[in-house]
Amino acid sequence: MKTLLKNAKILVIDKNISVINGSIVIENNRITHLGKAIPKFRFDKIINCKQNLLMPGFKNTHAHTPMTFLRGYATSGQLQEWLFETVFPAEDILIEQSEDIEILTKLGILEYLKSGITLAFDMYYAPKYIAKAAKELGFRSVILGTIQGERQSPEEVKADFDEFNNYDSLVSYKLGFHAEYTCGPDILVPLSKVVNELKTPVFTHLSETEHETNDCLKREGKRPPKHLIDLGLFNYGGGGFHCVTFNDEDMALFKKHQLSMITCPGSNSKLASGTPNLRKALDLGINVSLGTDGPASNDALDFFYEMRLLSVVQNLRAKTPNTLSHEEILRIATINGARTLNMNDLSDLSVGKIADIIMIDLHAPNMLPLNNIPYQIVYAASKDNILMTMIDGKILYYKNRFNVGENVNHIYKKAQQITDKIKKKLKKN
Amino acid sequence: MKTLLKNAKILVIDKNISVINGSIVIENNRITHLGKAIPKFRFDKIINCKQNLLMPGFKNTHAHTPMTFLRGYATSGQLQEWLFETVFPAEDILIEQSEDIEILTKLGILEYLKSGITLAFDMYYAPKYIAKAAKELGFRSVILGTIQGERQSPEEVKADFDEFNNYDSLVSYKLGFHAEYTCGPDILVPLSKVVNELKTPVFTHLSETEHETNDCLKREGKRPPKHLIDLGLFNYGGGGFHCVTFNDEDMALFKKHQLSMITCPGSNSKLASGTPNLRKALDLGINVSLGTDGPASNDALDFFYEMRLLSVVQNLRAKTPNTLSHEEILRIATINGARTLNMNDLSDLSVGKIADIIMIDLHAPNMLPLNNIPYQIVYAASKDNILMTMIDGKILYYKNRFNVGENVNHIYKKAQQITDKIKKKLKKN
Repeated sequence: MKTLLKNAKILVIDKNISVINGSIVIENNRITHLGKAIPKFRFDKIINCKQNLLMPGFKNTHAHTPMTFLRGYATSGQLQEWLFETVFPAEDILIEQSEDIEILTKLGILEYLKSGITLAFDMYYAPKYIAKAAKELGFRSVILGTIQGERQSPEEVKADFDEFNNYDSLVSYKLGFHAEYTCGPDILVPLSKVVNELKTPVFTHLSETEHETNDCLKREGKRPPKHLIDLGLFNYGGGGFHCVTFNDEDMALFKKHQLSMITCPGSNSKLASGTPNLRKALDLGINVSLGTDGPASNDALDFFYEMRLLSVVQNLRAKTPNTLSHEEILRIATINGARTLNMNDLSDLSVGKIADIIMIDLHAPNMLPLNNIPYQIVYAASKDNILMTMIDGKILYYKNRFNVGENVNHIYKKAQQITDKIKKKLKKN
Repeated sequence: MKTLLKNAKILVIDKNISVINGSIVIENNRITHLGKAIPKFRFDKIINCKQNLLMPGFKNTHAHTPMTFLRGYATSGQLQEWLFETVFPAEDILIEQSEDIEILTKLGILEYLKSGITLAFDMYYAPKYIAKAAKELGFRSVILGTIQGERQSPEEVKADFDEFNNYDSLVSYKLGFHAEYTCGPDILVPLSKVVNELKTPVFTHLSETEHETNDCLKREGKRPPKHLIDLGLFNYGGGGFHCVTFNDEDMALFKKHQLSMITCPGSNSKLASGTPNLRKALDLGINVSLGTDGPASNDALDFFYEMRLLSVVQNLRAKTPNTLSHEEILRIATINGARTLNMNDLSDLSVGKIADIIMIDLHAPNMLPLNNIPYQIVYAASKDNILMTMIDGKILYYKNRFNVGENVNHIYKKAQQITDKIKKKLKKN
């Protein structure tokens, strides 16, 4: 399979970020040529990009995709109350009927494809159904084990680690647990044993609110990052989701252990959790990547919104415009995500890399005039500018049409039915 | 001309906000029937809405639409530096060639139509070309005179007031001046005379930053709202754009004089100006409406972004989720805008009102499942869900196609040429 994306502008993310004119050749799932010279192949597919922009797909490095059923449902409360009183009871019902997770994940994947997200680092239960959804639609999924109380154990995630790292080329699996405030030593000590046996990274919700940070200090006598590091959980890397309350000590530890901070501005600002000091994190050389979090706390899974919001909440925090540069924000949304996951093959658009590519319409009123294309992607572009989403060399979305081998209206309808069923059960309880 | 929008969900903004099933009949430019019963007319146009949502168009109550040429251009600096060093010199060149304002406005109007904005309260120079652009494309424009130094005088805006309030049913004109920090008593005293002669509201940039508020205190011995009220400028109503630094005293004055606060979260957070206390303003009963500000400080003219951002920056400011309710935000984006402008005919969807209506796709992955439609419009919807934009009973945008009587590619091309020309001149200077 040889595909030619010709007559394009191409976003090059190197030491600097620039835009060049040229074409991209994809053989099977990899970029084999990029630039002005096009080899004389007989192409199976040729797309004329008409001077629109090709760039790497967005890497959503914190997601709970199956939580689409809670979009617009869990509408109130500060994090702890919202989580324990609204989210967990609804999830308990879903997990009983875990095959429903397939459809709810598929709904989220369709939303990703429309907004240029080509990978989700998906923290949820029942990995079997997340993996099935990703494989069937052709989406790239990195599933994160999620130990929490009765929901999954260190033994289970160890077995899942083997199973889902050998399931499909689009699917992989990493070790994770919900949070230090929902997992005691009965979970974390055996989990650390698994981590050090497999020599593998770990990810978790971390330092999301002042409340949880203070609780950990009281309970453990340490701040959350130190608590987990001392347990040996981060001996082989990984990272934390949110990291809102990180202070200098937390950041120094993250730098020392080469851990990633995954920031979720949409969720953190909606739940009023706060804004981390990412200027400091970047200056220290910590890898920072971006996540939408789940639709229960964010409602929309939209990296254009997340990028702009990331920028402006950092500005408000620091009382300084351009606290992060637009180049930093583009990196955070793309190649830094690949670095978080140690998936260097997915980072930028260059020869040898896997073809997870999106095309952005530069002939739309919100993108014109063209003054500074990389800057305008961060501050002016939106989902409606996504013309194409390609994953693993396959075009899954093109000019408002899905090409996922399934009737999307069926997915919409089933997702509504599943949601209505869960709500009915919740009312009974 | 009789139009039927049938088989719809309709957002009703009453004491509460609700969604009903039904149809809307439009005769010429007004809604004449709304509900389940459809009169037996011979309709000129029938649209089957297929259970998608009809709601009032968004009212953009602070805009500088012709500044599209500065999108992605003026990329740095805090407000004062950004304004005087980047924006004003570029504008000086544009104003010399003021017929170019027509195309730059048209570009912005196309962006509005794609994102469901049906009215812009447009503060800029050369009203002739803004009015021409609005009339020719069928867009609703309320032009705001903009006195500032050599750019327009109280006599000119008085003449413009007469001319553009008698120009076209889609166009109207109000009195305004740039800001108290760019207009001294030589401008404001004669302007106040005009205001009190015409007995008409006035609008201005107000209390946007701490810096300008402190300067006014030093210079005038009063905070900006009191300074302007004492000059008699607000004797017949009006309002302020931004109002970021408003304290209790400022709000009490705005309440007493029935003035509107027009908030611009996108611009205020990008420029790191801050976040006003809108919880307090709403509790006092002050009318609050929403604006994008211009593309120089905001880059995208997108009310979905503004609504979500409005919500979350208020949450971060108050450290409380749901500081504003989703109903309040929907009002701020729609009917409160009509109130700011005293244009009650444009407020909600009810019989007798002018048909400025948008249709939102409820069959898209980011909008499903439907749990709470009004909530999901604020937190999940985006521009790509806009199926239709109708202004004054005419459909100007429908399913990704413009119907504005002009070749939009021509507008795109001309806007780029104008921008390139201005940048070339700027480099020479």
